[in-house]
Amino acid sequence: MKTYKVVTIGGGSSYTPELIEGFIIRYEELPVRELWLVDIEEGREKLKIITALARRMVKKAGLPMEIHSSLNRRDALKDADFVTTQLRVGGLEARAQDESIPLKHGLIGQETNGAGGMFKALRTIPVIFDIIRDCKDLCPDAWIINFTNPAGLVTEAVLNHSDWDRFIGVCNLPFGMEMGVSKILEVEKERVRIHMAGLNHMVFGLDVFLDGTSVKKEVLDLMVTRSSALNMKNVMDLPWSPEFLKGLGAIPCAYHRYYFQKEEMLAHMLEDFSKGASRATEVMEVEKTLFEKYKDANLADKPEELEKRGGAYYSDTACNLISSIANDTGDIQVVNTRNKGAISSLPYDCAVEISSLITKNGPIPLATGVLPVGAEGIVQQLKSFEKLTCKAALSGKYEDAFVAMVSNPLVQSEKIGRLVLDELLLAHESYLPQFREVIENLRNKS
Amino acid sequence: MKTYKVVTIGGGSSYTPELIEGFIIRYEELPVRELWLVDIEEGREKLKIITALARRMVKKAGLPMEIHSSLNRRDALKDADFVTTQLRVGGLEARAQDESIPLKHGLIGQETNGAGGMFKALRTIPVIFDIIRDCKDLCPDAWIINFTNPAGLVTEAVLNHSDWDRFIGVCNLPFGMEMGVSKILEVEKERVRIHMAGLNHMVFGLDVFLDGTSVKKEVLDLMVTRSSALNMKNVMDLPWSPEFLKGLGAIPCAYHRYYFQKEEMLAHMLEDFSKGASRATEVMEVEKTLFEKYKDANLADKPEELEKRGGAYYSDTACNLISSIANDTGDIQVVNTRNKGAISSLPYDCAVEISSLITKNGPIPLATGVLPVGAEGIVQQLKSFEKLTCKAALSGKYEDAFVAMVSNPLVQSEKIGRLVLDELLLAHESYLPQFREVIENLRNKS
Amino acid sequence: MKTYKVVTIGGGSSYTPELIEGFIIRYEELPVRELWLVDIEEGREKLKIITALARRMVKKAGLPMEIHSSLNRRDALKDADFVTTQLRVGGLEARAQDESIPLKHGLIGQETNGAGGMFKALRTIPVIFDIIRDCKDLCPDAWIINFTNPAGLVTEAVLNHSDWDRFIGVCNLPFGMEMGVSKILEVEKERVRIHMAGLNHMVFGLDVFLDGTSVKKEVLDLMVTRSSALNMKNVMDLPWSPEFLKGLGAIPCAYHRYYFQKEEMLAHMLEDFSKGASRATEVMEVEKTLFEKYKDANLADKPEELEKRGGAYYSDTACNLISSIANDTGDIQVVNTRNKGAISSLPYDCAVEISSLITKNGPIPLATGVLPVGAEGIVQQLKSFEKLTCKAALSGKYEDAFVAMVSNPLVQSEKIGRLVLDELLLAHESYLPQFREVIENLRNKS
Amino acid sequence: MKTYKVVTIGGGSSYTPELIEGFIIRYEELPVRELWLVDIEEGREKLKIITALARRMVKKAGLPMEIHSSLNRRDALKDADFVTTQLRVGGLEARAQDESIPLKHGLIGQETNGAGGMFKALRTIPVIFDIIRDCKDLCPDAWIINFTNPAGLVTEAVLNHSDWDRFIGVCNLPFGMEMGVSKILEVEKERVRIHMAGLNHMVFGLDVFLDGTSVKKEVLDLMVTRSSALNMKNVMDLPWSPEFLKGLGAIPCAYHRYYFQKEEMLAHMLEDFSKGASRATEVMEVEKTLFEKYKDANLADKPEELEKRGGAYYSDTACNLISSIANDTGDIQVVNTRNKGAISSLPYDCAVEISSLITKNGPIPLATGVLPVGAEGIVQQLKSFEKLTCKAALSGKYEDAFVAMVSNPLVQSEKIGRLVLDELLLAHESYLPQFREVIENLRNKS
Repeated sequence: MKTYKVVTIGGGSSYTPELIEGFIIRYEELPVRELWLVDIEEGREKLKIITALARRMVKKAGLPMEIHSSLNRRDALKDADFVTTQLRVGGLEARAQDESIPLKHGLIGQETNGAGGMFKALRTIPVIFDIIRDCKDLCPDAWIINFTNPAGLVTEAVLNHSDWDRFIGVCNLPFGMEMGVSKILEVEKERVRIHMAGLNHMVFGLDVFLDGTSVKKEVLDLMVTRSSALNMKNVMDLPWSPEFLKGLGAIPCAYHRYYFQKEEMLAHMLEDFSKGASRATEVMEVEKTLFEKYKDANLADKPEELEKRGGAYYSDTACNLISSIANDTGDIQVVNTRNKGAISSLPYDCAVEISSLITKNGPIPLATGVLPVGAEGIVQQLKSFEKLTCKAALSGKYEDAFVAMVSNPLVQSEKIGRLVLDELLLAHESYLPQFREVIENLRNKS
Repeated sequence: MKTYKVVTIGGGSSYTPELIEGFIIRYEELPVRELWLVDIEEGREKLKIITALARRMVKKAGLPMEIHSSLNRRDALKDADFVTTQLRVGGLEARAQDESIPLKHGLIGQETNGAGGMFKALRTIPVIFDIIRDCKDLCPDAWIINFTNPAGLVTEAVLNHSDWDRFIGVCNLPFGMEMGVSKILEVEKERVRIHMAGLNHMVFGLDVFLDGTSVKKEVLDLMVTRSSALNMKNVMDLPWSPEFLKGLGAIPCAYHRYYFQKEEMLAHMLEDFSKGASRATEVMEVEKTLFEKYKDANLADKPEELEKRGGAYYSDTACNLISSIANDTGDIQVVNTRNKGAISSLPYDCAVEISSLITKNGPIPLATGVLPVGAEGIVQQLKSFEKLTCKAALSGKYEDAFVAMVSNPLVQSEKIGRLVLDELLLAHESYLPQFREVIENLRNKS
Repeated sequence: MKTYKVVTIGGGSSYTPELIEGFIIRYEELPVRELWLVDIEEGREKLKIITALARRMVKKAGLPMEIHSSLNRRDALKDADFVTTQLRVGGLEARAQDESIPLKHGLIGQETNGAGGMFKALRTIPVIFDIIRDCKDLCPDAWIINFTNPAGLVTEAVLNHSDWDRFIGVCNLPFGMEMGVSKILEVEKERVRIHMAGLNHMVFGLDVFLDGTSVKKEVLDLMVTRSSALNMKNVMDLPWSPEFLKGLGAIPCAYHRYYFQKEEMLAHMLEDFSKGASRATEVMEVEKTLFEKYKDANLADKPEELEKRGGAYYSDTACNLISSIANDTGDIQVVNTRNKGAISSLPYDCAVEISSLITKNGPIPLATGVLPVGAEGIVQQLKSFEKLTCKAALSGKYEDAFVAMVSNPLVQSEKIGRLVLDELLLAHESYLPQFREVIENLRNKS
Repeated sequence: MKTYKVVTIGGGSSYTPELIEGFIIRYEELPVRELWLVDIEEGREKLKIITALARRMVKKAGLPMEIHSSLNRRDALKDADFVTTQLRVGGLEARAQDESIPLKHGLIGQETNGAGGMFKALRTIPVIFDIIRDCKDLCPDAWIINFTNPAGLVTEAVLNHSDWDRFIGVCNLPFGMEMGVSKILEVEKERVRIHMAGLNHMVFGLDVFLDGTSVKKEVLDLMVTRSSALNMKNVMDLPWSPEFLKGLGAIPCAYHRYYFQKEEMLAHMLEDFSKGASRATEVMEVEKTLFEKYKDANLADKPEELEKRGGAYYSDTACNLISSIANDTGDIQVVNTRNKGAISSLPYDCAVEISSLITKNGPIPLATGVLPVGAEGIVQQLKSFEKLTCKAALSGKYEDAFVAMVSNPLVQSEKIGRLVLDELLLAHESYLPQFREVIENLRNKS
């Protein structure tokens, strides 16, 4: 039986124990022979802690899985079968600024699809492109499974601006939606299937099936009273109006609140902000606690606290995907992949998040056709924002970044957009080499 | 030579003298034999004033153009060649509420594409459909030239929810943009051509030609310092940033400020609002003055004050279009017509505002292909809003109106959207028969 | 566990024992409670024979499956879960004429996509529409599984000219292609998956996977020497050139020989024709022998001779499909269903034959994108022919039938097309009520 | 006033005097300052004759138009405003083989869209690409106006396989169709406008307007009795059936006979062929006579005999186009240009022949939408053939050429396609450098 070599870029992440657990649980169907945890110099300490924990976990499980650890990506990549990417350029500090700078100017930062997410993309895309260059040399047949946010933006950039095709973006949100709906319906998750389509963090449940029979209407009704079941750890849990859901005719995801309940969300975030609270600082606390735990030489399991971190199911999602590719399973998973006409009104070649058949040859999206009208507009607008952001990430031009910023549906203002853009550029200078000249000019002006 | 019968629904409008002047000026190429001015009972007095003025104008011009006047549409329509519609269901009072109710809740009302425009559409579409029913009986070969705002929404409704195809929406904005660009370039308007595409009040100049040579870049540069030349009387004149224009790569229209300078516009509007000023009340003043003028039995010309009214070039636009259809001119005009794939990324059958070849058989849009990415997102979102609004206008369902409202890029909030929706429904009760039941429920609840 | 009621229209067909066997084999996963065999008066005798055989088969299997038999469709349909249609309007005699009349004029008749298939569609579509009318009354939630040829044309007509959506066309060819490729590769069929897309009897294998890994190139090479493995019983087995397959880059189906080896096929068919041999007369012989067998009161199994009949795997294909729908299996099968953008260059709403995910809610085609250029042209041309034929089948107009005939890639000639059209119209008069007037005129002229 | 430099590649062609006449007639609106006639060494004698005649014509007209003549293209191209290409790689001898070799095997050769046209493309595309390389160096802002057949194939190749965009293919056929329809209607050509769309020599008149009013139905009726008015000099004049035209609902062009009256055309061509007659040899005769005339030092006009040559209106078509570009006229002409979604069902970027607005910035096709179903199939098939041929022209691979050949709707046979392909490859060896290796292999085999 074929065994696999997996390389995890950003292996020092606090999420890694979930991934290890995922590989351990699935060892029989997906025998990972070597797992390489790779990180950068700044992550040396964390990587060490995680590596030690991973080895204890594998040992306890009694499996012949080798855990390697390296600060040099090129040493690790050779002949990898799967490369997972779970990195955070600039760390949680950068995220804190992605969120707080927009909020300071009265805007929702939104670390994935808002002004914050835009900057996360500007920092991340060049790094991903570097990784791809190494993969082309060292493991040209590998699949890159990207959990790095903003997963939609990163996938869009890779599929349309690089020559690497074996790239899939994953997110725990669709998995969470199916979990949530099964809770709402009070049935096991296995009996529920949602046909999902849209973009990352902008995905809609177009239909919901219980044992194959559509229960969309029932779910839309139940969501009103039980919407919290569908929520994400990291998104405020505001209820949806029954009339809105009925009119929309599709299951919104947690992140849709930023676009359809913008004022409501902003009010809460500003309140938290005024108290000095932010999701980023909250997460930093959790992280600290987690690593303390991880250090414990007696710990040989993923600790429960990790679920609070907000990334629950990421491991399941990624391991499921890797296993389905390895085994050519042909099951349906929701991934970020090339559209190829599956959503007919979106560009043929763009990245979409969509229910897809998973094969050894990659995901094949299910033909979904046109989106419901209530979903179409916001999805199209976000796709334009994504394309503009990718252009800016690669050109390093101020004008490209500015139009991307202003076009974001959470910004919509030249004046505020410029303030936020300039501050974020200055704040992230060291992670934005492509904007060096632009940032120097800004600095000279101010 | 063929002579024409024209019927103007809403003939008692203060704009009508421009139209009369337009027909007089073009009499040689477009001999209007009979012009019927039609209005409703509430407009009896205004209609009388306008009819008398029209007759004086025609007499002064020495032309054999008969001016008829009627309060009964069906008496007028028989065998018409062209029917123009310039009506305002609920009058300026309704408009005042379209604008003030959203503002009260911190939203831009925007009488064409915002919450206000949505309600104008809900009031207007059923009336336009009634007119179409009469036209089918009495003048099935007529062209309906619609100046009634929101022209994009009305055209969308007719082309996709009625069986009448000979319908064209016109707006003075594209004409004004060409005028403005010619002023910026300091050349005669005839030498300038803008390839325009998008939606009504959401149209972009994709390229600009001076004597056929593209001068888009020059115009985008000049717009920064001279943007006011491109402005509309009824849109606040805020300057555009040079970087934004460069990044966008297309000429925005005046109304784009609502979407790309939202905060800036809102601030100004709220200031005016706090002073009790509003565009609607301003217009009411102008109207009063105008009708006083019109009554003057010595007046036999369009008075200059009319230009302040904000509708300048409407007459030119409409008369040009009618003349080009009548004469199969084959010139290019920007109209609201069926897409037919001209903008490839928009639905095949939807209404678009686009540079079109004008023939006796109607407009043929120029193949425009995909929009620039910076334009695509907002155009798509507005088209979805239009489709949702048309659905609501015809269904009379609360949920449809609610989703349309929340999907509007100037609303984006369930909470505020609901407040605004409910108040507008109650305010416009008498003009929204399709929502009678919904409004009764609202009234009972409150 | 849910049990099912299945109604088979055309139950007196010689194929039926395969179907019975299919239901018997699958009883555990697909418990058919009642199977109704329905036929018309002309089939009374055959229906009687088949019903008796079916009962013997079920009895031998020891299953509680009731076999009913009726000459009145409406008596049978009430509350059916699945309706299968396997009828032949005009019987094998009509088929003989579909083939011989074109051949007489030097054309390949081709009983599915040629002039012959066109007439089969003209006779069949009105009958299928009648069945649908009954289903709407009596079993509105049933799935209609159509094995009636021409399956592509019939599905196109139903999906675009009726209001019945739960309709799937099946064909044994894709199953046969997978069987054939597995023989070529000398592996079990389960290990092979072909991604297929196109139209019925015009389907291409776009990629071939062995255990999930693409082996398309290997298969294209092997096909040259082993093409007969891929052949259909009823299509002449001519070899393909290696250069043609390489240039095409896709696996053609057996029927593609009619379009890419037209002269070669025609030569063989004319030779057979000159000897008085035809597929139809051959089949009539086989049928006679089969029914003699079926009468044997000792026979309680599907006799082996049935495989010679040419319809092998039809039963497997249909039973697999029904079982996957009933059980919401989510496996991939190749069916004729609505495109919904899956093949981006074909009309959104048209019927295509395509690899689809099978769910309780029907098939969801896999997003396939654009076809390879070498496949695109002929598929598009056949789709146009299908649309023209559907129009003619419903309008009964000579001009519509004439354009359909001339547009067929096996006809291409007004002169010969007219001769063949007129003779076929006259020959099939009694089965073409919609063309009554046209045929009378023809008769009067001649 | 701006004056122009025009370079005519293939200036020694017998057509050139028409072009000279065209420029002379239009001198006021289109002042050609320099006209460079360029040819290759083999055309030295003809070029000399034409140049002398051109100078006499210009002198007689009394215009300051310089006539230059060169055997070195690069000497001529510097700063050209317009480059016209009217070349024939291999001359009429090659054409004779393009026609006779297929006919020998029972196929219509068809020097534009058939097997013959395919080889004309294989010979011509590399030469056009060489010319483009020179233009990029020497006159990067020039428009290339290509009259070289097969104009559709050449335009497809340039627009999709080179980086030169300012390229327009012209054909005299659409002009001839408008002439023909005006004759049928017995009105002046100026009053007639046909909305045309399709591919070169595969273009359909989708609607016909007389003074702007649709007269399509009348024209389709009249065509039956007067079809010869619509014919081309070089296409056999067979009548169309009234029912076919009615069913088609569009005006076919003369060349459609090859696809809808294939047998009829083939019969005539084989008859001619058996008598040793062919269009190519006929043309060679006419050419000889023409050049005798041209030598006459007293001749200073285009001789009438030229019209018999079959290329009538080419000059008018090309000069009209050049003049409309130079003057930014904005009139409608039918040209081969990039689709850009104008015909929605054809690939976005492909070359189409379509009614277009002619501007200084190039043609803008009119949005045409979907083609009538009866036109769609054959247009799609020919477009696929064009794409396959372009691929082969650039790859020089046997398999690519073979699939292109077999996919041609006049071939449809591997066996005959191979015979014709191999003979044509061998016959044209010296003009097919990209196939050198392939041809050597063929030669070794035989």
